Amino acid sequence: MKAVVMRDKQLRVEQLANPEPGQGEVLVKTLACGICGSDLHMFHHCEHVLANFKRGSIPIAFDDRQDVVFGHEYCGEILDHGPGSDKRLKVGTRVCSLPFVITPHAFHHIGFSNRYPGGYGEQMVLAEQMLVPVPGDLPADIAALTEPLTVAAHAVNRARMDGSEVPVVIGCGPIGLAIIAILKSRGIGPVVAADFSAGRRALAEKLGADVVVNPAEQSPYTSWLEVAAPRGYDINGPMALLGLGPQPKPCVVFECVGVPGLIQQVIQSAPPRSRLIVVGVCMESDRIEPIMGISKEMNVHFSFGYTGEEFAYTLYALAEGKLDGAPMITGHVSLEGVCEAFDALAQPEQHAKIIITYS
Amino acid sequence: MKAVVMRDKQLRVEQLANPEPGQGEVLVKTLACGICGSDLHMFHHCEHVLANFKRGSIPIAFDDRQDVVFGHEYCGEILDHGPGSDKRLKVGTRVCSLPFVITPHAFHHIGFSNRYPGGYGEQMVLAEQMLVPVPGDLPADIAALTEPLTVAAHAVNRARMDGSEVPVVIGCGPIGLAIIAILKSRGIGPVVAADFSAGRRALAEKLGADVVVNPAEQSPYTSWLEVAAPRGYDINGPMALLGLGPQPKPCVVFECVGVPGLIQQVIQSAPPRSRLIVVGVCMESDRIEPIMGISKEMNVHFSFGYTGEEFAYTLYALAEGKLDGAPMITGHVSLEGVCEAFDALAQPEQHAKIIITYS
Repeated sequence: MKAVVMRDKQLRVEQLANPEPGQGEVLVKTLACGICGSDLHMFHHCEHVLANFKRGSIPIAFDDRQDVVFGHEYCGEILDHGPGSDKRLKVGTRVCSLPFVITPHAFHHIGFSNRYPGGYGEQMVLAEQMLVPVPGDLPADIAALTEPLTVAAHAVNRARMDGSEVPVVIGCGPIGLAIIAILKSRGIGPVVAADFSAGRRALAEKLGADVVVNPAEQSPYTSWLEVAAPRGYDINGPMALLGLGPQPKPCVVFECVGVPGLIQQVIQSAPPRSRLIVVGVCMESDRIEPIMGISKEMNVHFSFGYTGEEFAYTLYALAEGKLDGAPMITGHVSLEGVCEAFDALAQPEQHAKIIITYS
Repeated sequence: MKAVVMRDKQLRVEQLANPEPGQGEVLVKTLACGICGSDLHMFHHCEHVLANFKRGSIPIAFDDRQDVVFGHEYCGEILDHGPGSDKRLKVGTRVCSLPFVITPHAFHHIGFSNRYPGGYGEQMVLAEQMLVPVPGDLPADIAALTEPLTVAAHAVNRARMDGSEVPVVIGCGPIGLAIIAILKSRGIGPVVAADFSAGRRALAEKLGADVVVNPAEQSPYTSWLEVAAPRGYDINGPMALLGLGPQPKPCVVFECVGVPGLIQQVIQSAPPRSRLIVVGVCMESDRIEPIMGISKEMNVHFSFGYTGEEFAYTLYALAEGKLDGAPMITGHVSLEGVCEAFDALAQPEQHAKIIITYS
């Protein structure tokens, strides 16, 4: 099969042997696969990322001296079943899947593995257990958004919102945009979104953000105040701190940037008793001021991954038109275009999600 | 009146003018007052603490070049009513109160104020709005525990426990002990408690902690594992991280120490998806590793203060015998004994809560 391979810290389009499905696995033809920020990160800082995953006990590991085929945001079509398969889904069925192969002895992350090539290749081997059939005629590129949208859905679920909150999305990269899409699909809002990039602010608007702000010009919490708080409410005043007097709607901040200093910036600037959902993956050590977290009774909720239920629910929501992720897609490429797409994605101004498609 | 006064960075027993109740205030005779760790902290590091309160927007401020009478954990008896009082509670009624006087223009913290002397003096002026009558014949020294026990009750409330959790209390100073008392009063447990001091471990046992551990000898999370997790559950294993396989009871960690490094220590050592309730007030900058918080989906919940409802509920629970805080009390002193008590409390081995009583 043809695939984009990471070898010797380079991405190359190569011919590889077709993967073969083992026990309880299926072979699929890749139809579409999203390029994820994690792929870029892994490509540019592989050793650093792997070392930090190890430090964080994240069970994603591979030998970076051997071939790796990226791609964990995919939609495929079943070509064949491995031995011991229950063949619940027939050949020709279009499927998405959680990008995991889990055995009692090992955990493999499809697309971050020497053994399981991801959707940057024409064929993949997936675990039958992890398959979810794509309903109806949902286009494959939209179905491929299921994975990043589920990361966002999980973060929103972690925030346990009851609909009364006014959320603030910090950073409108693919995950920030996905969170906006999920919030809008659930009728939660108005949604305040902030990004330094005009291009990403335009995308945030396309995904339905109600108030879009350039943090270089105005604090996102000033924007939040305007839509969420009674007149005269002072974020830093003693009445706000003590929870006395007319109260604002609850503030839930989604941190989708993942650079050092941002957690403390939210603790310092968001209103008292905010919930901060940390979705951006910061690899560095970070500094916080507990006294400010304490006086404002902040809640810092780290979010990671998702469940199988969340994955299936997201795919169905896309198929039923309850969730619109399409505006996230800013481009399509063939395998030959992946290198160029990696360069383009390094510029936040133009692109959010680029999808690899196969003719 | 006689009072212990902080003046020129010294504590002195002095005769002061009796305070006079203003609009909506009452004059009380102090019956009992607890010595709080915050009093010690304020005495030894006054400028530092005030600067950090200011940095954290905590509205507690006074001029440390003028007299301050500490004491915000008190029980008193009404002597007189100020003008415009509704006299809902008669002269002679024993009362506790939230140690605040709040006007539309100012916030005063009784005991951390140049204007409102606290329970280290024979008389106090309290806000009528903030009074809660002491039910029945609850002894005054036990009633004076209402305030620190309410700090603990608030922290437990913040943790939104449903009774299925196995809590871990890190640090068995007065607040850690109060949290143990609250958890036991609500039937939540088994409670795991950890402290380096043998004396404080003995107190933790007296307050009902089920498993008491010296962290120099065994990790509190190993103790937690033994009572909360199925056999073979590995806190750092991939199955734990992924939330797959037999699950342990939820872990809620109460951090009651408040020194730099402890938040990260919990993030690193506690099981995945733990809730960390930060009750210890760390005044310094602190360092965390977000990648570990993310991979383990930790929830860091800062807790501070309490509500009037929580205060009244705690006092009633004490009076009804549903809550037993008495073992926290390790000594009683007169005003003349306060200096010595401050020295004694600097040694964690012997004392937890010392109560000032008046004959």
